[in-house]
Amino acid sequence: MKTIKLASMPTIKRLPAYLHVVETAARDGREYISGTVIAEELELEPIQVRKDLATTGIIGKPRLGFPVAELIEAINAFLDWCNVHNAIVVGAGHLGSALTGYEEFRRRGLNIVAAIDAESHKVGSTVNGVPVFAPEELAETVKTFEITLAVLTVPSPSAQSVANQLVDCGIKAIWNFTNVKVKVPEDVIVQKEDLTSGYAMLSVKMRAQKLSS
Amino acid sequence: MKTIKLASMPTIKRLPAYLHVVETAARDGREYISGTVIAEELELEPIQVRKDLATTGIIGKPRLGFPVAELIEAINAFLDWCNVHNAIVVGAGHLGSALTGYEEFRRRGLNIVAAIDAESHKVGSTVNGVPVFAPEELAETVKTFEITLAVLTVPSPSAQSVANQLVDCGIKAIWNFTNVKVKVPEDVIVQKEDLTSGYAMLSVKMRAQKLSS
Repeated sequence: MKTIKLASMPTIKRLPAYLHVVETAARDGREYISGTVIAEELELEPIQVRKDLATTGIIGKPRLGFPVAELIEAINAFLDWCNVHNAIVVGAGHLGSALTGYEEFRRRGLNIVAAIDAESHKVGSTVNGVPVFAPEELAETVKTFEITLAVLTVPSPSAQSVANQLVDCGIKAIWNFTNVKVKVPEDVIVQKEDLTSGYAMLSVKMRAQKLSS
Repeated sequence: MKTIKLASMPTIKRLPAYLHVVETAARDGREYISGTVIAEELELEPIQVRKDLATTGIIGKPRLGFPVAELIEAINAFLDWCNVHNAIVVGAGHLGSALTGYEEFRRRGLNIVAAIDAESHKVGSTVNGVPVFAPEELAETVKTFEITLAVLTVPSPSAQSVANQLVDCGIKAIWNFTNVKVKVPEDVIVQKEDLTSGYAMLSVKMRAQKLSS
């Protein structure tokens, strides 16, 4: 496997926020948006915004700023959000159900087409319009729906064994919402979502707030 | 207000993962854990781990590594996770409900004691044992339960108006799960949780995977 150089992680993570601001500008009928306006909206340094956006290959015009339509296209192309990824949610509890109903995902090419749940009373029903299948139906469901991405929202004790099953079904990308660091073969991508990271940030800021007030 | 220097954001965001690894070592009865072992477990550079952990004031011993019990205490103290924060979830939909049931939060001092929902059939019921109140009861609930933190999981169009109400009730910290960048007075902390950031990372990695296979 060749190694592809990725943009820096913080830059990539900020791109959706830029996209959001620029899309709002487009809806407001604006043709150009300056890096400074984007920076103010997101409380970032203008130089940071220009560096981040340069990653997508877009160049602003002096005095005018970035052309809105092209910038939207450039960010979407960079994130590969023009292509649709069929996804399966494994574990249709509260979090899994919330993710099936997350409108923005669909607009960004994340197409959740099926869910798996171990509770038999959920099997055969739908969550936000997404059909729920039994664990035994995983391999078949992945094949039928041409699924390339799995969203892992099972209870932590099942995380590794379910990840193994996903790998056996040929899944090459797992979005892991459990607090287990699952082990997978080298050619499988795992993106771990850790809600306690955000809480850690919040806690540190709250402590600083308390100290400074 | 004095300005307090915070540790770098990526460092803070990694601390919960360190805590998780070190707690596992403690459960396995280990007295010391080396930076190298932590680094391997989390797929980080050992130098990064040592730098991050130094932030909490802990120093490893040559050959032995970090004392497990002290390291756990240092991380918890740094994150202020020994103190309990009473929190309210505003918007008891799927995501809000998922958060009330997130076991790890409680262990980290995030004590969700109440929820608010605009749907009248939910009011008076409980979600994962957490009582649900009506929007009109917000101010009273905040007072009764001595709530200092609000978790914002309302639909995006309501995000700003609900944030305003939270500020009016004296809330000084908001964990924002909507995709709206809410405006608040300077002395109010907002931590925005953006699920599309993780999806952006995943998308870029999947594109790189496709290109390299």
